[in-house]
Amino acid sequence: MILDTVETPAAIIDYHKMCANIIRMRDRMNALKVAFRPHVKTSKCLEVAREQAAQGARGITVSTLKEAGMFYAGGFSDITYAVGISAAKLPLAHNLIRQGCDLKIITDSEESAAAIAAYGANNGMAFKVLIEVDTDGHRSGVKPESPDLVKIAEILDKGGSVLEGVLTHAGSSYDLYGREALEAMAEQERSGCVKAAKSLRKAGHACPTVSVGSTPTALSALSLDGVTEVRAGVYVFFDLVMHSIGVCSMDEIALSVLTTVIGHQKEKGWAITDAGWMAMSRDRGTAQRPIDYGYGQVCDIQGSPIAGYTVSGANQEHGIISCQGAVDKDIALRFPIGTRLRILPNHACATAAQFPGYIVLEADEQITAWPRFYGW
Amino acid sequence: MILDTVETPAAIIDYHKMCANIIRMRDRMNALKVAFRPHVKTSKCLEVAREQAAQGARGITVSTLKEAGMFYAGGFSDITYAVGISAAKLPLAHNLIRQGCDLKIITDSEESAAAIAAYGANNGMAFKVLIEVDTDGHRSGVKPESPDLVKIAEILDKGGSVLEGVLTHAGSSYDLYGREALEAMAEQERSGCVKAAKSLRKAGHACPTVSVGSTPTALSALSLDGVTEVRAGVYVFFDLVMHSIGVCSMDEIALSVLTTVIGHQKEKGWAITDAGWMAMSRDRGTAQRPIDYGYGQVCDIQGSPIAGYTVSGANQEHGIISCQGAVDKDIALRFPIGTRLRILPNHACATAAQFPGYIVLEADEQITAWPRFYGW
Repeated sequence: MILDTVETPAAIIDYHKMCANIIRMRDRMNALKVAFRPHVKTSKCLEVAREQAAQGARGITVSTLKEAGMFYAGGFSDITYAVGISAAKLPLAHNLIRQGCDLKIITDSEESAAAIAAYGANNGMAFKVLIEVDTDGHRSGVKPESPDLVKIAEILDKGGSVLEGVLTHAGSSYDLYGREALEAMAEQERSGCVKAAKSLRKAGHACPTVSVGSTPTALSALSLDGVTEVRAGVYVFFDLVMHSIGVCSMDEIALSVLTTVIGHQKEKGWAITDAGWMAMSRDRGTAQRPIDYGYGQVCDIQGSPIAGYTVSGANQEHGIISCQGAVDKDIALRFPIGTRLRILPNHACATAAQFPGYIVLEADEQITAWPRFYGW
Repeated sequence: MILDTVETPAAIIDYHKMCANIIRMRDRMNALKVAFRPHVKTSKCLEVAREQAAQGARGITVSTLKEAGMFYAGGFSDITYAVGISAAKLPLAHNLIRQGCDLKIITDSEESAAAIAAYGANNGMAFKVLIEVDTDGHRSGVKPESPDLVKIAEILDKGGSVLEGVLTHAGSSYDLYGREALEAMAEQERSGCVKAAKSLRKAGHACPTVSVGSTPTALSALSLDGVTEVRAGVYVFFDLVMHSIGVCSMDEIALSVLTTVIGHQKEKGWAITDAGWMAMSRDRGTAQRPIDYGYGQVCDIQGSPIAGYTVSGANQEHGIISCQGAVDKDIALRFPIGTRLRILPNHACATAAQFPGYIVLEADEQITAWPRFYGW
C-alpha cells in the first residue's frame, strides 16, 4: 500500500470519507432549507474548503484573522470571523476589507461595539457586524433576552458599522450524548438566536442574518425556522469526540495519524510508536466520555479499527499502544517493529493543527499532499 | 510597554529569565563535572540553542530527524536523535551523516539494532548507536540488568554500526514532588545507566558515552559519577509543571503567552481572551498536581503572576479566565476589554509548539522575533 512509503508520523485524510461527510452535511442543510457556512478552523486548508464550496457551501467561518487572510488570498471572499474582535485587530480587519474581502466581524458588548463603530467612522468605512448571542452559557455572547442586545445594535447602527445579524454557537453540545439531548440543544440554539433577532427587529433593526451552529446541533436539528445559515467545522473530518456524542460512526472519521511501531515493553503489553502527543495533540477529549480512547483509537494501515487497542500514553514523540483493560503479552507479535498503524484522533481540530500538511489518500495507490497553515 | 504593540496571541520569551535558566544549568553541570547536551525539542529554535551553546553546551539532543536537519543546517553538528529509530528513517539519518552531521541514533531491541547494522553494512557506513536503557519503567529502553543489553551490543559491533554508549531518560521524574523524591530518582537514573555501561564494558564493549537526564533529575542529582553527559530540555523555559514538581520558582518561567481580553460574562466572573487551547496547547499537566492551574497562570503584562487567576477553560481561540474558588463579580473592572495579560503555560514544550515564532523581550522597550519550526 502506498502509505507504506509515507514518512511517519503523518496526518492522513481519507478523501472519500471526507467527501461523504461534506455531502451528508450538504443534504441535511438542503433539507432544512438553510445556507451553510463551514468553519475552516478545523482544516486550515484551501483544498478542503474548496471541496466544501463545491458542494454548495456559501462563504466560510474563520477563528483568526490569519485564516481570513489566507482564505481570502485563496479565493474565498465571503468570510465571517466568529471570535469577538479586540480593538487592536480592527486595522487588520480593515485592511482585508480594503482589499475586497467581504469580512463580517462579531461583538458581544457595548464597549467593543463602540470601538468598532468609532474605528469605522474615523476611517470612513463601515464594518459588517453580527452580535454574538449566548444560547447555552458555555462561553461568550449576550443572552437572547438581554436588553444589551438592542443597546449594542443602536451603537452599531449609528455609523462606522452596520448590524448584519446575530450569531450563536451552542458549544455545550460537545458535552451531550444521544439524539434526544442533541435535538433539544439544537432547538435551544435555534430558538434563542431567533428570539434575539426578533427583539432586534422589534426595535427597528433589520437583522438579516441569523447564524447558528456546531457540528452536533447542525446534524441534530429537526427545524431551523427563522435561521438563515448554519456553521460547523469538525464534521468535515469527524473524530472520536463526535463519535462519543453520537453524531458519527467510527467509520466516518476521515482524519487519522499514520505511525510506525518503533519498540515494545513486552511484559507491560506496550507497543511504542513514533506518534506521541506532538502528533496526536494533548487533547484528551474522550477522557470524560463513556469510552476513554486515551490519545486515540488504533487502526490498521487500511484504517480499520483494532478493537480494544488505544494510545494509552504519550510523550512528545512516543506513543504507547496497549490493550484496554488487559496486558497483551503478545503485543510484539501483534504489532512487530516497523508495523504501520493509523490512529483516529480525539479531536480533529487539535490533531490536524500539529501538522504542516495532510496526506490525502484517494485510493490505495494514490496520494496527494495538501498544505495547511498555523499561527496567528 | 512595547508588548502593547504585539499582535495577540503571541509566545513571549523573557530573555533574561531564559539566560538565567541556561546559566543555572551550566553551573550545575560544571559542579557535577559532566558535559551538557540540551534537548532542543523544547524550543525548536536556533537562536535559543545558540544561547545554550554559548554557555558551554556540547552538542544537542533532538526528538525528530526534522530537528536534526534544521539544526545541522543552522550550524550544529554533534546531534543525538534520542527516539528509537525505525528502519524506514535510516536513509534520512544516513543522508544527514553523509552531509557531515555527527549524528548519533538509539535502539532498544535486537531487531532494531540488526536493521541499523544491516543498513550500515549494505551502504558502506557505520551508524554511531547508543543503547536506550530503561531506568524508571516509564517508556522505552532495555532494563539495566537485562541480558539483551549485551546481545544488542554484539549485533551493533559486528559492523554497519558502532556502539557509542548508553542513554536513559527518567521521565517519571515528572510525576514526583520535592527534593528527596527527585534526588532518589536522579540517583536511580544515574546508577541504572552506569550499571548498564559496566555490564557492556565487562562484556568487552567500550561504551564511551553514558548519557542521562531530564530537567527534574538534572537539577536534583547529588552525584553523577560514571555519567559522561546530561540531557535536559524544558529547563530553558521552565513551566508550571516544573514549578509544581519543585525545580523552579514561578518567577523563573521564561515563556508566556501574551493575550488580549475580548469580553466578559460578568455574572460568572469570566474574562474571555484570545488565547484558547490553540495558543496554550491542550496540555493540562497540572490537573493532577496539588495546584491545578487550568490552562495557565494569569500574569499582568509585565509578567507578574496575579494570584488566584487562571485560565480555567479554553476553546480553540477563546480562553476563559476566572478566580479559583470564587466568582469575581468585578472581573470586568479588574480586566477590562483590551487588557493585555501574559499566561504562564503548564508545559512549555507543548505551548511553544503552537507558535511559528517567539517574541523575545530583552527589556521593556526592546523585542526581537525568533522563528521556530514544527512538523516532521
